[in-house]
Amino acid sequence: MATAASYSYSASSMSKVMPFRGAKGGYRNEFLCSQSKFLRQTVESKSMFLSADNKYSRSRMQIRAMSVDKAPSFSTGNKFQLNDILEAQQFDRDTLTAIFDVAREMEKIEINSPGSQILKGYLMATLFYEPSTRTRLSFESSMKRLGGEVLTTENAREYSSAAKGETLEDTIRTVEGYADIIVMRHFESGAAKRAANTASIPVINAGDGPGQHPTQALLDVYTIERELGKLEGIKVGLVGDLANGRTVRSLAYLLSKYPNVKIYFVSPEVVKMKDDIKMYLTSKGVEWEESADLMEVASTCDVVYQTRIQRERFGERTNDYEKARGKYIVDKAVLGVMQKHAVIMHPLPRLDEITVDVDEDPRAAYFRQAKNGLYIRMALLKLLLVGW
Amino acid sequence: MATAASYSYSASSMSKVMPFRGAKGGYRNEFLCSQSKFLRQTVESKSMFLSADNKYSRSRMQIRAMSVDKAPSFSTGNKFQLNDILEAQQFDRDTLTAIFDVAREMEKIEINSPGSQILKGYLMATLFYEPSTRTRLSFESSMKRLGGEVLTTENAREYSSAAKGETLEDTIRTVEGYADIIVMRHFESGAAKRAANTASIPVINAGDGPGQHPTQALLDVYTIERELGKLEGIKVGLVGDLANGRTVRSLAYLLSKYPNVKIYFVSPEVVKMKDDIKMYLTSKGVEWEESADLMEVASTCDVVYQTRIQRERFGERTNDYEKARGKYIVDKAVLGVMQKHAVIMHPLPRLDEITVDVDEDPRAAYFRQAKNGLYIRMALLKLLLVGW
Amino acid sequence: MATAASYSYSASSMSKVMPFRGAKGGYRNEFLCSQSKFLRQTVESKSMFLSADNKYSRSRMQIRAMSVDKAPSFSTGNKFQLNDILEAQQFDRDTLTAIFDVAREMEKIEINSPGSQILKGYLMATLFYEPSTRTRLSFESSMKRLGGEVLTTENAREYSSAAKGETLEDTIRTVEGYADIIVMRHFESGAAKRAANTASIPVINAGDGPGQHPTQALLDVYTIERELGKLEGIKVGLVGDLANGRTVRSLAYLLSKYPNVKIYFVSPEVVKMKDDIKMYLTSKGVEWEESADLMEVASTCDVVYQTRIQRERFGERTNDYEKARGKYIVDKAVLGVMQKHAVIMHPLPRLDEITVDVDEDPRAAYFRQAKNGLYIRMALLKLLLVGW
Repeated sequence: MATAASYSYSASSMSKVMPFRGAKGGYRNEFLCSQSKFLRQTVESKSMFLSADNKYSRSRMQIRAMSVDKAPSFSTGNKFQLNDILEAQQFDRDTLTAIFDVAREMEKIEINSPGSQILKGYLMATLFYEPSTRTRLSFESSMKRLGGEVLTTENAREYSSAAKGETLEDTIRTVEGYADIIVMRHFESGAAKRAANTASIPVINAGDGPGQHPTQALLDVYTIERELGKLEGIKVGLVGDLANGRTVRSLAYLLSKYPNVKIYFVSPEVVKMKDDIKMYLTSKGVEWEESADLMEVASTCDVVYQTRIQRERFGERTNDYEKARGKYIVDKAVLGVMQKHAVIMHPLPRLDEITVDVDEDPRAAYFRQAKNGLYIRMALLKLLLVGW
Repeated sequence: MATAASYSYSASSMSKVMPFRGAKGGYRNEFLCSQSKFLRQTVESKSMFLSADNKYSRSRMQIRAMSVDKAPSFSTGNKFQLNDILEAQQFDRDTLTAIFDVAREMEKIEINSPGSQILKGYLMATLFYEPSTRTRLSFESSMKRLGGEVLTTENAREYSSAAKGETLEDTIRTVEGYADIIVMRHFESGAAKRAANTASIPVINAGDGPGQHPTQALLDVYTIERELGKLEGIKVGLVGDLANGRTVRSLAYLLSKYPNVKIYFVSPEVVKMKDDIKMYLTSKGVEWEESADLMEVASTCDVVYQTRIQRERFGERTNDYEKARGKYIVDKAVLGVMQKHAVIMHPLPRLDEITVDVDEDPRAAYFRQAKNGLYIRMALLKLLLVGW
Repeated sequence: MATAASYSYSASSMSKVMPFRGAKGGYRNEFLCSQSKFLRQTVESKSMFLSADNKYSRSRMQIRAMSVDKAPSFSTGNKFQLNDILEAQQFDRDTLTAIFDVAREMEKIEINSPGSQILKGYLMATLFYEPSTRTRLSFESSMKRLGGEVLTTENAREYSSAAKGETLEDTIRTVEGYADIIVMRHFESGAAKRAANTASIPVINAGDGPGQHPTQALLDVYTIERELGKLEGIKVGLVGDLANGRTVRSLAYLLSKYPNVKIYFVSPEVVKMKDDIKMYLTSKGVEWEESADLMEVASTCDVVYQTRIQRERFGERTNDYEKARGKYIVDKAVLGVMQKHAVIMHPLPRLDEITVDVDEDPRAAYFRQAKNGLYIRMALLKLLLVGW
């Protein structure tokens, strides 16, 4: 997994602390804080967030160790190899497997158990420039299920000093003084990377415009592994808006890491999967084909991944939207041809692209999928703040 | 109180978990979770919210037992007979008395005492489709005064996926994965019941449009009992907007459960109490009369319950509003004729229907009434999450 | 410091509880609560916020004493001489020094240490009638870093019952029932004082329109003392919008308390420092002069305090704004003439009045200044809730 440490943004995250390192001696804790990118995954470093005294931190580490000795797998204090969660490309197969193992541990944590306190004392700032109740609540629940605390801005774009013309970088430099980790949603592609390059604390990208939404990609793969028990050699049908849905694009990318996967693209003409992903899959030796026959694909696939046709992308072209929207619906008929072990997934929210009568079928996995977002985010918060 | 358990929505809350029960074995904790409607009022069940292991839960129960042994009355773990708080009609007189007893215990809880931790580890989601700072803060304060945590959406209507066309049911199925109880405010009458029929966790109706606002009704009755020391044989004057105020309607409904109560309706012609309530009271043998003379009513009543004339209901008819608004004001003169033991109540906010110089009089109970909302909500959260 | 106790609003805060004292015996805890203005700084009193029983409170005090015996300097329980934080004028030099000492203690608090729990069980309500993410997050982080909890309203003006026409006083009387301290931001000058005159719990002014923003003033002085190691005999250049910036006005006011301070005003013609402050400084024997030469001032000053030209104050006069805005920029050239020990400060947010290439210089203190806001607010919350 060492390779994971050598990503470009990892390098940039080192350069980012230089200005701080130059800071005048006045603030020793500031100085230590500026180092946190290198140290923070170890319990010691993080404990110094408000302290200039090493002895304190050590005693603090013992306190933690004690408080969780019933859950030895937690807080072993080994550095997590990623500084920030910015894009699906960060994750190699080993890292995915390791993160999924932690997510499984998270599923087992019960209320008021030692595990439920492993992030006690840590503060997460949810900096949302674009409202997204689902994603925000999922992250905040994850933090609180682990005993951590949350600072919320539901509409940073309108409320924050951004309205007065402050740069994202300046906002980050201020917020990093208030919290231990930043979860950011932004309307501009690349904003998360800019934030991470500035911050001396971890940044998680909760979606940056048309760009990336890596935690969604992770929870999708985790759900497939959870539902089917495997990822190798599976057949996945991606259905609906494949042109605009960043979810399906990231998913296709991550699936390419597993051998013998076959992907089917089923979408209306106007929102077909773009060539970059097709070419990428081919280059990785991943089999894929386009199909106009949902029933046939559903009958052969292990996963039918349905997505919402996003009206907002059609603008004035209402007819195109209505035509695209009605084309591929997952209903009882589709269920009828699906295999017993197969599952239906959807990133949610859904309109009518999956009919409500499908919900009761055990193969309807989309609400379990949403719940898995909780465990994946718990795992990532735990790994970024206290390490393995 | 067994009867209370046989309400229709209680039945529906059983049917609601069927789809989950059918869910494939993959997720044992999901399965247990889906059962929580039957078990959750016992401490064990709830402790399994993230667990598949019975032994854990038992140990957890002991931990809780220990942590509160100084306050034996808490968490005795007996099931609360209600699954959700949806409408005033749910409460028979015995249930009211029992809830009020718990509310009295809540008043005695001090900061950092064992009692202040009985909801530690529990997560409440406040899903507000319509902003209501007063009600939201009251619920969130109640949860935090008991050591619980909160996920907030101040404006779900605009921010949540509802904007993208997601159904309330889908939103609930997602949010129930993040929290242990949902407090919902909605603009549509009946929305709370729909949410409860979907959710596998308790739902509290914090007001659904013109529909119900049961916790307000409870705190009103609790305040009368608290202020007068009794509910039997009291005389209550309902003043102001009786046509649109759901508060006075629910209050009249609940008062009918106590013997020898007499109710006076004092309101402008345009916003008179509707016939359904009058007929209901008559059918229950509750004496009532309409009066145009506030002074006379005030001189005989134990409770003068003033309400705000709601401008928003008059639309263009500004004159009607102004006329209705000025008609019945509670001022020093009204105070002058009231009995020494009588009290003035108001659901708040108030405009000028009670003059400010009345506030200093001991009989002005409306701010104590607001504070009682805290204790009633603490009691309900405690009962729904950990039982008697 | 006794003098500090004899402020006019302190007197008013006594009169404010009279109505409550008259309250009927029904609610003993209410009665005690109403006294809290006099007692609350002692640990006992506050512990009664939900209790009517003295013996409880005593035991509670012991619990607290125990819980912090590793940090003896905390919670010694001596009354803080201020009831509310409303305006810079409240602070004499001794009080400032004492608050700064506590702020230094706050810098040393580490995660999960006893100090990080001194406000456990306390609830802060952030009542923001005007959004200000930076200030709100800073206060909420301060409360949570000390183990306290928060109730948030990001946009009270639009959401709260204020929209229905409720007076600020009524809102305060309701909110004081839910929380232990209120942090308020309002659009009207004087609103904080009105709130404090109503509330029986402490109120902190987080900015009231063109009025005051006392915690900003405190963190500015704290930062100077932190960066230079002294406040006596320093030379401070106030640059930019001196007419509208309440920050620089409060700063000038507080600096006048220290001997041999010299202040330079450097601003465009249209936004010059107003005469009231100039006259005040002269009356206090503080040397000051106006200058149009930023370079010369920068070369002699210990502190260059730059501010943003506030477009919103210029309305239609876009040309005036553009002219004013471009006039005095702090850049590498300015840095070049500044002394090695001098620092650049800015209340933030900044636009381009400080060029980004300045950030890396150790003398750029503005992000450390923002961080200091955390420690000052931690100190104030601690002092108002549990005393020295």
